[in-house]
Amino acid sequence: MNSSRCAACKHLRRRCPSDCIFAPYFPSNNPRRFAYVHKIFGASNVGKILQDLPVSYRREAANTLCYEAYCRIKDPVYGCAGIVDQLNEQLKVAEYQLATIRAAITTTLQPSYLLDQSLPM
Amino acid sequence: MNSSRCAACKHLRRRCPSDCIFAPYFPSNNPRRFAYVHKIFGASNVGKILQDLPVSYRREAANTLCYEAYCRIKDPVYGCAGIVDQLNEQLKVAEYQLATIRAAITTTLQPSYLLDQSLPM
Repeated sequence: MNSSRCAACKHLRRRCPSDCIFAPYFPSNNPRRFAYVHKIFGASNVGKILQDLPVSYRREAANTLCYEAYCRIKDPVYGCAGIVDQLNEQLKVAEYQLATIRAAITTTLQPSYLLDQSLPM
Repeated sequence: MNSSRCAACKHLRRRCPSDCIFAPYFPSNNPRRFAYVHKIFGASNVGKILQDLPVSYRREAANTLCYEAYCRIKDPVYGCAGIVDQLNEQLKVAEYQLATIRAAITTTLQPSYLLDQSLPM
């Protein structure tokens, strides 16, 4: 073992090989980043996901795995899927407001009507 | 082993105990559901996440884990985080359109102006 092991190899208490699949994306100065993905996905699955991707996609994949792991740790029931639900709800509200305001403009062509109806301003 | 094993125990080729943590959420008639979460999170991590939750939250957690696993299999780089990004973009567009249309109504109070400006209708 040496002092330049990446966060993953430090966490797993193993030697960090020169071609370590984790090293470029899990630097030793951010141990929590690996701890999150390890807790939720497991080191082996994370390694497999990265290994199966072209090198140019691996950093983005590591980042999104960290994001998802963090979401699941913060909210063990809904995780990242909970964020998707919330955003879908917000989008539905915004689209409903847009549809309402556009319908009002199209059908009445009277801005005073829009204001009187207390449309969301 | 018996024929009433849940999808998880069938997949893991093990006996399905009467108090199996997976059985209520991974029925034998839907083997793909377990295969997804096993591939992405690993059976052990899924079991731990479910075990750490009150029983009343476990079904929802199993459902959201399946959703996330499916997203990651479909899109190994971005997974569920890619859906979050897309929804954030859509929400930003909808909110910009709302702000634009509201500003136009408030400042001009002339619906003909709104139509002339080709605001998104």
